[in-house]
Formats: sequence, C-alpha cells, structure tokens
Amino acid sequence: MKVLVTGAGGFVGAPTVRLLAQAGYDVHAVSRSGRVPPLPGLTLHRADLLDPAERQRLIAAVRPSHLLHLAWFVEHGEFWTSLENVDWLAASLHLLRLFQSSGGRRWVGAGTYAEYDWSPGGILPEDGPIRPVSLYGSSKASLWMTADSFGQQTGMSMAWGRIFNAYGPGEPAGRLVPSVIRSLLAGQVAECTAGTQVRDFIHVDNIAAAFVRLLETSHTGAFNIGSGTGARVGEVSETIAGLIGRTDLLRLGAVPSRPGEPAFLVASPDRLKSLGLQPPLSLTTGLEQTITWWQNYSVG
Amino acid sequence: MKVLVTGAGGFVGAPTVRLLAQAGYDVHAVSRSGRVPPLPGLTLHRADLLDPAERQRLIAAVRPSHLLHLAWFVEHGEFWTSLENVDWLAASLHLLRLFQSSGGRRWVGAGTYAEYDWSPGGILPEDGPIRPVSLYGSSKASLWMTADSFGQQTGMSMAWGRIFNAYGPGEPAGRLVPSVIRSLLAGQVAECTAGTQVRDFIHVDNIAAAFVRLLETSHTGAFNIGSGTGARVGEVSETIAGLIGRTDLLRLGAVPSRPGEPAFLVASPDRLKSLGLQPPLSLTTGLEQTITWWQNYSVG
Repeated sequence: MKVLVTGAGGFVGAPTVRLLAQAGYDVHAVSRSGRVPPLPGLTLHRADLLDPAERQRLIAAVRPSHLLHLAWFVEHGEFWTSLENVDWLAASLHLLRLFQSSGGRRWVGAGTYAEYDWSPGGILPEDGPIRPVSLYGSSKASLWMTADSFGQQTGMSMAWGRIFNAYGPGEPAGRLVPSVIRSLLAGQVAECTAGTQVRDFIHVDNIAAAFVRLLETSHTGAFNIGSGTGARVGEVSETIAGLIGRTDLLRLGAVPSRPGEPAFLVASPDRLKSLGLQPPLSLTTGLEQTITWWQNYSVG
Repeated sequence: MKVLVTGAGGFVGAPTVRLLAQAGYDVHAVSRSGRVPPLPGLTLHRADLLDPAERQRLIAAVRPSHLLHLAWFVEHGEFWTSLENVDWLAASLHLLRLFQSSGGRRWVGAGTYAEYDWSPGGILPEDGPIRPVSLYGSSKASLWMTADSFGQQTGMSMAWGRIFNAYGPGEPAGRLVPSVIRSLLAGQVAECTAGTQVRDFIHVDNIAAAFVRLLETSHTGAFNIGSGTGARVGEVSETIAGLIGRTDLLRLGAVPSRPGEPAFLVASPDRLKSLGLQPPLSLTTGLEQTITWWQNYSVG
C-alpha cells in the first residue's frame, strides 16, 4: 500500500500516520504547515489542498494506491459554521477525481456523527437518517453521498469513518477535555456547563487504529468511529478532576448549556467491531493517558 | 432583479431566459456554446463554468443579485453515470461561494426527482427521504444539502426545484418524447418498451414558469417541479401516436424494459401549487404543442 494521508499534521492525522509508518507502509503525508514529525517510511509533502494546482501536483507526484482524506477546516469554535466547509467539500471532490484518474484503488475519508439526524437522539446506526443541521455536517454528508456513488460508478473501493467525540493527546487546546485538564493541572478553577447530555467519547488512538484498518481492508461503506458507550459530558470532567485529584476546582453548571442539545447521541458500534480491532480504551484509562501527555507537554 | 442564468442555452434554460426577459428583468445568460437567441433585456456571456478562472471572471463582471443555476452535465444516456457530475458539483459550490461573496441575495438551483428514495415508490413529498442511487442524483442532492445549510449560515435566500419528467420543445432528440415524435412524423416505426411504469411528465414551459416564480418570490427550500399527475410511460407514446394519427407505427413492448424500474413516481405538487402558478399543461395539450414544434423545426 502506497498511502497518501491528507491532514497528516492534525489531531487525528498525526497518530494515524505514526501507526501506518510503524506498520511498514509507504506513507506519504501532506500537511499545509509541514508540521509532521519525521519517521522511517514517511515522506512528507507540503501542499495547500485548497489550491487546485497544488492538488494536481501532489497526486501526480505521489500516485498513491490508497488515499486517507482527513484534511478539513477544523478551527475550534468555528468549524461548525465556517463557509470554508464548502471550499473543503469542493477541494475534496476534485482530489477524489484526481486520485481515481491517477490509478487510485481505495479511498477512505473522515466524516462526523453530525451527519446524522440528531432530533430523535439515541443509538445512531450507519444506515440511519442523514439530516445534518450544521454546514460542517452537511458538507461532510455531501462528500460521502457523492463519493459513495462515485465508488459504485468507477469500481473504486470507498469507506467513510464517522468520528464521534474524539479526545486524547494533541487535541486542540480550546476544547473541553484539554481545557479542563490544563486548568486543573495549573491549579485553576474549571468552569463548565452542567453537561447532562450523553455523548460517545473515543480516544484518538482508537480512531487512528480504525482508519488504519479501514485502509487495510476492502470493507466499503460508512463506519461509526465511536466507542459504543455513552458518558455524560459532565462525567468526563468529573473523571479528569478525580484523576488529577482536584475535584474542588471543578464547577459543573457554572456555564449555561447550549439550548437544543440532544440528550443522548451514541454510536452503534457493530460495523466497527466487525473489523476486529482492539476494544476502545475505557474513558478512565484514556483520560489518564491524556493527562499524562499534557503533564509532559507542559514541562517539555 | 439582476439575474444570472447558467445553462441558458439548454432545454430548460432557453424558455426560462425568454420568460425572464419578457418580464422585463435584467437577464444575464451564460452558456458554454453561446447558443442563446438574442432578446431585448438579455446580455449574453460565454463562459466555461468548469474553469475556476472563468467562474470568477463571470461573477465579477455581472455581480448579479439573483442566480438561477441550471448548468450541469446533461448528455442523454450518459448523465446518470458520468463522472462529470462530480466536477459540476464542485464547480457549483465554488460558484455559490463567489455569488455570495459578491453580494448575491437569492440563489435558485435545479435538482431532480432522482434525489429521492425511489425504492418504496409513490407520491414523493419534498421532505421525504433522500437516497439517490445514481451519481447524478447524489451530486444534485449533495449540492442542495450543502447549499441549504450555506443559506441558513449566511442568510442568503435559497430555493431548489426538483424537476420530474420534463418534455417539450427543444428536448434532446435521443429521449423518449422527441424520438417517438420524429419517428412517427417521418413515417417510421417507433419501437418502445412496454412503459407500464407511471411517471410525472411536465412541460418545459411549466418548468420555466416555476423557476421564474422561484426567482421572484422569497420562498425557501425544495420544490417539486412536476405536474402532480401520473401517466404511464407507454401512454405518452400512445398519446403522441394518436395525435399524429400513426398508432399503426407504434410498437410498445418491442424493447425490453430496464429491470428494477419503480412502478410509480409522481410529485407531490402542493408546495409548487402554493406559488400560485397557472396549472400545468395537460399531457395531451403539451404533446400536441410539442409535435407542432417538431413539425416546424423539421421544415425550418
């Protein structure tokens, strides 16, 4: 497998590239920033995938057999509504066309649980209704709808991983888990919403392992990348506080909840389980490892 | 209203542009071929919308307040499966972005009844399940899913017309209605499938009127553009043969039917009716007018 990974410097991309290189594949990582640590077996490419000419140059230079498309606009607090979602959808479609024309055989893309209809809530199976309410969810759902048909038309093998609530080392610092960890490690109060809603938290290493397996197999279609286990959002903060030993600094309910948050959104994990991966890390183990990472990151 | 119409030289585009110009709007028509008849109030632009630079140049030159996006890959016999559907989706998204950035206020696009889930068959309401099986249907459904979210995000007013079985003057000659008409007018046998499946045939002038109304109003969302009345496909050929007086030349069932054709697909017409348009032409009246057009076309 000669695999091109886009978004290789990102939260999900970095551990995925590491796993792929460790497994001995011919890994080509592309990143706009070029911030991907060197590894044996890894070739780094710097490219702005929003530039059509750079997309063409990249695919022509690498001619990958496999493409793992993780790149997207992911700025915390902005990605749900940014108009750049539309640009990333258009760029991704062009990249798919170039990949297929250059002899590409298998394409794996990163989707989101925000593609699903959230209004009823509950356990979300892959073949459930798609009714995104955000521009992020719509753009991702559109990419998969088109890519899936494209695969059926061309015979290219296509899979799609819908990521649930990712956490772990390297998570952008403004998001819930790192912000609570960093506050408590610094001895500062962490003000949070009550967090009564139940979500599906999955460690980024499990996400990376899922994408590697999706590249290796020929299973097609959409796969939930979630743990299949629900946890209250407040429970995540409580677990962090307990592990750090600073429950005194945690203020659940100090920040008002966003209105209209669905009460319960958890992945149906059966399709992912059918790939034979290791069971996902428990929330406690995963958070413990993440806290350790931040402790080392702070001092490093 | 300063309206830019893409695909203005096409089957639906030509009568729509004519109606818009007759209504006195400032109409800017774009066509790759440049084959749009001159009309008072009409400015013609020649551009290849698959070229990003030409898209940019066009929007910068016109700066329309309204955009009617009809352009797509529509080659008969190929458009269902062509990979160009992906290119048109990407180009359409970019055009939407450019339109909004340049101050565009209302966007109306052309969709298809092939976006719907056909498997149960029946009357198709706009809020029914979207589950296209063709790359054409997927690409169109993806454009609307993203454009709808984009409109909610930006405040731009967005509408989408899902066209059912269009027929009328200017229809590409290889399709059912023109091929039966031309064979029978030439005194040649017309071999058809049995055509037992029921579809929703709508005259292109009614489609044009619907798009003009969608541009004029501020109603948002998807609108079926169908007659709301079902007709057997074979009945269409029989009506043509009766009107021409050559039922002797019609051979229904001489061509095998495509397997898996849904038995019944008809538009729920309520949303379109709410726009207060003239009732659609009856099939007999519409076919009679179409036959007359082909008679004149043949001699002209």
